[in-house]
Amino acid sequence: MQTLIWNNLTETEKQQALTRPAISASSDIKSAVENIVNLVKTEGDKALFELTAKFDKTELNSLVVSKEQIEQATKRISDELKQAIQNAYRNIKTFHEAQKPQVVDVETQAGVRCQVLTRPIQRVGLYIPGGSAPLFSTVLMLAIPAKIAGCQKVVLCTPPPIADEILYTANLCGVETIYAVGGAQAITAMAFGTETVAKVDKIFGPGNAFVTEAKRQVSQQLNGAAIDMPAGPSEVLVLADQFADPDFVASDLLSQAEHGADSQVILVTDSPELAQATEQAIERQLAKLPRKETACKALSHSRVFIAEDLQQCVQISNAYAPEHLVVQVENPRALLDQLDNAGSIFLGAYSPESMGDYASGTNHVLPTYGYTRTYSSLGLADFCKRMTVQELTPQGFKDLAKTVELMASAEQLEAHKQAVSIRLEKLK
Amino acid sequence: MQTLIWNNLTETEKQQALTRPAISASSDIKSAVENIVNLVKTEGDKALFELTAKFDKTELNSLVVSKEQIEQATKRISDELKQAIQNAYRNIKTFHEAQKPQVVDVETQAGVRCQVLTRPIQRVGLYIPGGSAPLFSTVLMLAIPAKIAGCQKVVLCTPPPIADEILYTANLCGVETIYAVGGAQAITAMAFGTETVAKVDKIFGPGNAFVTEAKRQVSQQLNGAAIDMPAGPSEVLVLADQFADPDFVASDLLSQAEHGADSQVILVTDSPELAQATEQAIERQLAKLPRKETACKALSHSRVFIAEDLQQCVQISNAYAPEHLVVQVENPRALLDQLDNAGSIFLGAYSPESMGDYASGTNHVLPTYGYTRTYSSLGLADFCKRMTVQELTPQGFKDLAKTVELMASAEQLEAHKQAVSIRLEKLK
Repeated sequence: MQTLIWNNLTETEKQQALTRPAISASSDIKSAVENIVNLVKTEGDKALFELTAKFDKTELNSLVVSKEQIEQATKRISDELKQAIQNAYRNIKTFHEAQKPQVVDVETQAGVRCQVLTRPIQRVGLYIPGGSAPLFSTVLMLAIPAKIAGCQKVVLCTPPPIADEILYTANLCGVETIYAVGGAQAITAMAFGTETVAKVDKIFGPGNAFVTEAKRQVSQQLNGAAIDMPAGPSEVLVLADQFADPDFVASDLLSQAEHGADSQVILVTDSPELAQATEQAIERQLAKLPRKETACKALSHSRVFIAEDLQQCVQISNAYAPEHLVVQVENPRALLDQLDNAGSIFLGAYSPESMGDYASGTNHVLPTYGYTRTYSSLGLADFCKRMTVQELTPQGFKDLAKTVELMASAEQLEAHKQAVSIRLEKLK
Repeated sequence: MQTLIWNNLTETEKQQALTRPAISASSDIKSAVENIVNLVKTEGDKALFELTAKFDKTELNSLVVSKEQIEQATKRISDELKQAIQNAYRNIKTFHEAQKPQVVDVETQAGVRCQVLTRPIQRVGLYIPGGSAPLFSTVLMLAIPAKIAGCQKVVLCTPPPIADEILYTANLCGVETIYAVGGAQAITAMAFGTETVAKVDKIFGPGNAFVTEAKRQVSQQLNGAAIDMPAGPSEVLVLADQFADPDFVASDLLSQAEHGADSQVILVTDSPELAQATEQAIERQLAKLPRKETACKALSHSRVFIAEDLQQCVQISNAYAPEHLVVQVENPRALLDQLDNAGSIFLGAYSPESMGDYASGTNHVLPTYGYTRTYSSLGLADFCKRMTVQELTPQGFKDLAKTVELMASAEQLEAHKQAVSIRLEKLK
């Protein structure tokens, strides 16, 4: 990791030091995805079977996972792991249930009642990547809020072969249908529907460059589907002082670094001693990790910033706008009011990122790549939409009529004015 | 308007009848906007002066509107109109203040505290189109929630010459800086910043095809800006029964039709008599409208659906997913629970769309083009982002440690597990 003393940097160097490596789909990926999107839109199921044979080396009999497959998968999972998944389920459910929207129902003036109604998005599609590490924890993060929101249709796509844990967790969460389809073809199928795959209104979940590009493309097409948020590599910023345990700090940095070679890992501290001790601890811990190589690559483009005090640490964190922010200082809660632009914040020595990744109850689907400045941590609200309502009594209408007539006239929208005048006339 | 009896239509015909005319920027517009975006990114202010001279035929001395200009504009506005704007301001403020997010702070299990923190987006840019009809009402709709949210920087772009009402309203709302810049160049300036124009994190507001395309482009670029929502032509669906006043229904349809030739106007009713009476009322009212020609064009591609009962009316409305939904039936509130996919709902004979467009308190920036299925009516939440927080006590951590270790292992993320194990070790 490169160590930089913040105060020694020029403004330009500071900005550069906080800049993430550029990401954007290559034109190869863009056109490959365009082809897949068009193929699935025109050929439907046929294309899904073909593309699954081609990319996932699997000849499917059915795109839909059967009840029997789910039952068998459930039997193969240890009771211990089932219990762990259920514990996580319970905490995530508790936290997302607490996000139920408040009632907004006010009389803005006598006889003018205005409300906000929050309604579930009717049909949602969840995407779970395949590969060696089955991300069943993401099933919890997507399906639990979808069910609490009351989405009428909750379906899931994931490429074959599907890990038992994914089938078990999806079933536990009440996912209606699981399709054994992955990649850009799965995203297209959910966005537009095929003979077998249900069209959905919004698509959630992580994926590789093809999946990300497919989500981007279908979200830009008419009658496609909305998506949860823009995607980027995962990242953590640990803000630590001299009281932090370097072993803990190192372990948090590494648990991010193992995600992928493109993960970003940042340590910000006002203690050069802690920085040094952490680097040593990283060396020790790295040795034991199966994903050592991936972690090393991630660390090679990661940084340590030495700040003059905690205030400056906070400024650096807010400027970087990290996905995960781990705060290991003497009194972490005291910094909370000043911290901004973070997806999820982990306060104190015993709140490692792993806790939130799996089971504390918070959602691990978070904005990356600086999008925390404008996007939110995934929550119940993302599975809902807000509509407004107004109802005026004849007297409420009368009282506000002149205001609206004057404003409509000034905007030269005479029909808007007329809609008021015609009613006023009848009330006379 | 074309009249269709719903039950006489095949499924395909139903779908076609509810389909909006295709909208998408022509490749000419796309490349013109690309050029403007690149020019403003590379040449900054210089490009803004040049493009303003070219497109708005105005040689600016300064991009920033001066205090004197605002003072003079304020003097030129009638007291009557000022009072009207202030009335609207008050109602909109009341309704958006009622949207302040609730506190979410729960112990998901003993010693595991999880919170949602809602924070303002720091810098927001508002866009207001120019042209003959100055949309100062939109200034209220964008600036009031931005200020309530607590956004630190609220700036506004609008092309010169700027209407007095826009300057007065922006100043009333506490907008910090007004730039006399419009079009795709304004959107680019706010997304990336220039020497004079402040970079913002998120851009709000309506505009023509160039503005819409520019918003789309900058929202897709790294280090660009987020945007409020996708744009489409304005639309209204009036759901009426035999008790509705055909004059009222006609006036609501016309106040949407005058917005633009591409506006969509739909009447859904279970009463053929009301449909006929409404068409006659439209003819009568049209004669008096200055924007008659525009309204006629909009009406030419608009539709009347005759349904068999109110239930079917509701189904049609939910399937169309209108921006504005005006409900003029005997007991409108009784339908509210079943109504879905609408931006804003206007209940009863004395709640014309004009009321919400200007002054009831609800926001008139709404999803169009069927996006009401997944997007929300603009509200306080759009000027904020949600972060989550978790804090575990040593005991809370211990209780949850096994769960997280098991799940991390099953996902083959050993460093995630290690971050837990290392801490457990120290707690022994």
